[in-house]
Amino acid sequence: MSEIIVQKYGGTSVGSPERIQAVAKRVQQFRKTNPFVVIVVSAMGDTTDDLIALSKQISTSPNPREYDALISTGENISAALTAMALQALGVPAISLTGPQAGVITQGIHSKSKIAKVNTDRILAELKEGKVVVVTGFQGLNDANDVTTIGRGGSDTSAVVLAAALKAPICDICTDVDGVYTTDPRKVATATKISEISYDEMLELASLGAKVLHPRSVECAKENGIILHVRSSFKMDEGTYVKEASAMEVNRPVTGVTLNSSEAQVSICGVPDSPGVAGKVFTRLADESINVDMIIQSLGADGKNQISFTVDQDDLANAKVITEQVARELGAGSVECDDEVAKVSIVGVGMMSKPGVAATLFRTLGDHGINIRLISTSEIKVSCVVPKSEGQRALELLHSAFELG
Amino acid sequence: MSEIIVQKYGGTSVGSPERIQAVAKRVQQFRKTNPFVVIVVSAMGDTTDDLIALSKQISTSPNPREYDALISTGENISAALTAMALQALGVPAISLTGPQAGVITQGIHSKSKIAKVNTDRILAELKEGKVVVVTGFQGLNDANDVTTIGRGGSDTSAVVLAAALKAPICDICTDVDGVYTTDPRKVATATKISEISYDEMLELASLGAKVLHPRSVECAKENGIILHVRSSFKMDEGTYVKEASAMEVNRPVTGVTLNSSEAQVSICGVPDSPGVAGKVFTRLADESINVDMIIQSLGADGKNQISFTVDQDDLANAKVITEQVARELGAGSVECDDEVAKVSIVGVGMMSKPGVAATLFRTLGDHGINIRLISTSEIKVSCVVPKSEGQRALELLHSAFELG
Repeated sequence: MSEIIVQKYGGTSVGSPERIQAVAKRVQQFRKTNPFVVIVVSAMGDTTDDLIALSKQISTSPNPREYDALISTGENISAALTAMALQALGVPAISLTGPQAGVITQGIHSKSKIAKVNTDRILAELKEGKVVVVTGFQGLNDANDVTTIGRGGSDTSAVVLAAALKAPICDICTDVDGVYTTDPRKVATATKISEISYDEMLELASLGAKVLHPRSVECAKENGIILHVRSSFKMDEGTYVKEASAMEVNRPVTGVTLNSSEAQVSICGVPDSPGVAGKVFTRLADESINVDMIIQSLGADGKNQISFTVDQDDLANAKVITEQVARELGAGSVECDDEVAKVSIVGVGMMSKPGVAATLFRTLGDHGINIRLISTSEIKVSCVVPKSEGQRALELLHSAFELG
Repeated sequence: MSEIIVQKYGGTSVGSPERIQAVAKRVQQFRKTNPFVVIVVSAMGDTTDDLIALSKQISTSPNPREYDALISTGENISAALTAMALQALGVPAISLTGPQAGVITQGIHSKSKIAKVNTDRILAELKEGKVVVVTGFQGLNDANDVTTIGRGGSDTSAVVLAAALKAPICDICTDVDGVYTTDPRKVATATKISEISYDEMLELASLGAKVLHPRSVECAKENGIILHVRSSFKMDEGTYVKEASAMEVNRPVTGVTLNSSEAQVSICGVPDSPGVAGKVFTRLADESINVDMIIQSLGADGKNQISFTVDQDDLANAKVITEQVARELGAGSVECDDEVAKVSIVGVGMMSKPGVAATLFRTLGDHGINIRLISTSEIKVSCVVPKSEGQRALELLHSAFELG
C-alpha cells in the first residue's frame, strides 16, 4: 500500500451542498496522484452551534453524555453528504463515524482524548478503492458511547488519524490559504509563510492566530506529522508546519501579532514575602479567569509591583478579586487599564540570533511608542503598549523584521 | 423486574423543545406507576424531510448506505434532547441509538427489517433506574453500518422493542387521540373507537387512515402486542388495537373511509384469454404504478372489461401504458375517469353478520348514488362512486351503520 494522504476540511469548507460538491471535486483531483485518501470533516457551518442552541432550550446544564450524543450528529451529516458528493462524481467513497472508524476515546464527555485508532476498517475500505470520509471531533469510549473531543477537535482527529495510518503529511484545508506573517486584514503587506516550526505555530496559535488549534499542532509535533495548512478552494500550496531542524531558512522572526482585547491589572506596594503571587493567581483561577502575561518587579522601596493581563471581558471580575486579595495582603492600590494592546513577535530564529528583542524595543522607542510590560519566551517577545499605538506598532515591527 | 412499558412518540409530538419538554413531563407521570419505561422517538417535525432535501442537492440518487447514515441522525437528535428533558425534570434517563440499543437489522438499506434485538443494554439501564430513550427507525446491520427500516418505521421499532422486552402493551402516542369511526375532519359525528382488531386496523390503514403504519400493526399482531393509540398531549385512554377474539363487542362495521385521490381506468372489449390481466398489471408494476382496486367482468359479448383504480398522480402514465397493452392485446378502447371517490366500510363483525354489504348498497341506492365498482375482502367493502357524491356517501354510511 502506498502512502495514505489525510485531509481535514473545516466547517466553512463543507458549509453548504455547493461547497461539499467543491470539496468532492478537489478530492477527485488529489486522488489522481494519491490512490489512498482519507478525509476528515467538521460539521457544516453553524450546525454545531444550532444543536447547542437547541440543547439550551431544553436544559441549561445538559448531561455531558447526551450533549455529546446530540452535537456529534453534525459531523455525521457532513460526512454522509461528502461521501454522496464523491459518489455523484463517480469516485467510490464511504463515510465512517468516529466509532465506525475505530476512534477510541478516553476521559470525560465533551473533553475526551483520543486513546487509539483501530484502523482495520479504514484500511479495508481504502484497499477496496474507496475514499474514506471520517467524522472529525468524535469517538467511542469503553462504555460504547459517543464522546466528543472538544472544540476545534476535528484538526486533532485528522492528525491522530494521520499518525495511526502512518501518513507523513496531514492537509488542513481551511478558508485561508496558509499562515501569514501577521493578520492580512490588519497589515496589507502581510505575506504567506511557506514553512513554520511547530513551536512557532504554537506561539502564534496561543497569540490568537485562529488557523490551527494548538492541540492539533502539539499532536502533530509529538507524532512527527507535517501539517499543510492550505485553502479548501484552491489547489495552491499553503504553509507547512514541521520540525524547525527540517526547515531550510530560519528567519529571526516568523510572525507578528496584535491582540487588542486584553486589559492590564497592576497591584502596587506588594510586600516582598513568599506566596503572594500564588495567592493572587489561585483566586483568579478559582473564578475561571485566564491570566495571560504576568510580570513582577521589585521596586526601590523593597515592595513589589505585580502586573498581569486578562481578557477585557474578565476585567471587572478580576478587579474585584484582586482588590480583595490586595487588602488581605496589606498591599497598596490596584490599577486597571483596558486601553492597552499586546504586540508579539514569534520566531525560532531568535534563539540563535541575539539582538532580536533589542530591535523590537528600539523600533518602538524610535517611534515614541511607550512599552508598558514585556514578557518573553525562548521564541517569543510580547509587549504591552497603549491601545492607540497598537496598529502602528504592528506595522512597524512587520516592516522592521522584513516580513513584508 | 415488573412489566416494561414501551411508548412511541412521533415527529409532531417531539417537534420542538417545548413539545419534548411536554413529553418528558408526561413520561415522568407514567413512571410513577411504571418503574420501567422505554421511549421510542421519531425525528423532530420536518427534520427527516430537511435532511432528504439536503441530500437531493448533492445527488439525485444518493447511495442508500450514505442516505441511511444521513437521515438516521434526525432520531439521534430527538432522542438525546428527550433524555436531556427528562434529566432536567430530575428523572434519570439515557438515550440509546438503534445500534446502542442492540437493534440488529437485515436486508437492503432504507428498507431493512429488524432481525432481532439484543436487549442487554436496555435492561441494564432500566435496572439502574433510568428511562431509556431509543431512536426509532434505525438499527445496525452485520457490516456495522446504520440502516433505516423505511418510513413510518418508528412505530415498528416500538412494537419490536415491546416484543423483545416482553411488554404486553405498546403505547403509540401521536397527535390524534385515537382511531375514529371515520375522519373527524370530514364527518362531525365521527366517534373514537375504544377497541379495534388488528385486521380492521390493517384495512383502515391501507385505506388511508394515517394514524398507524400497517407494518407496525402486522408486527403487533404477530407478536400479540396490544397497541394503544393515544394522544401525546393528554393522559386519556385512546384506542386499543388487539385480537378480535379478545374484544368485547363486535359491531358489524367499525369504520368508514373516503378516498378521493384515486382515478379509474377501464379497458373495454378485452379478449377472454388467459394471461391478459397478468400482462396489464405486470407492465404497470414495472413502471412502479400502484394499482388499488381491480375488477374484471365478462360481458354478454364474451369479452371482458377490466377496470382498476390508481392514484390520480399516476393516471397519465397509467393511461399511456394501458393503451399500449390494449393495442397489443387487440382490446377495445381505454377509458379514464378521475372524477371518482372510493368509500369503504371495515369491520370484523361483517364476517358473522350477513347483509352488511346489502345495507351499504341499499343505503347508497336509496339516495340515488350510483356505484361504479365494488371490491370486497372478508372484513371490508369498497365502492367507487362519482366524486361529487363521495362526501354524502361517507356521511350516509357513517349514519347507516350507527357509528355516530
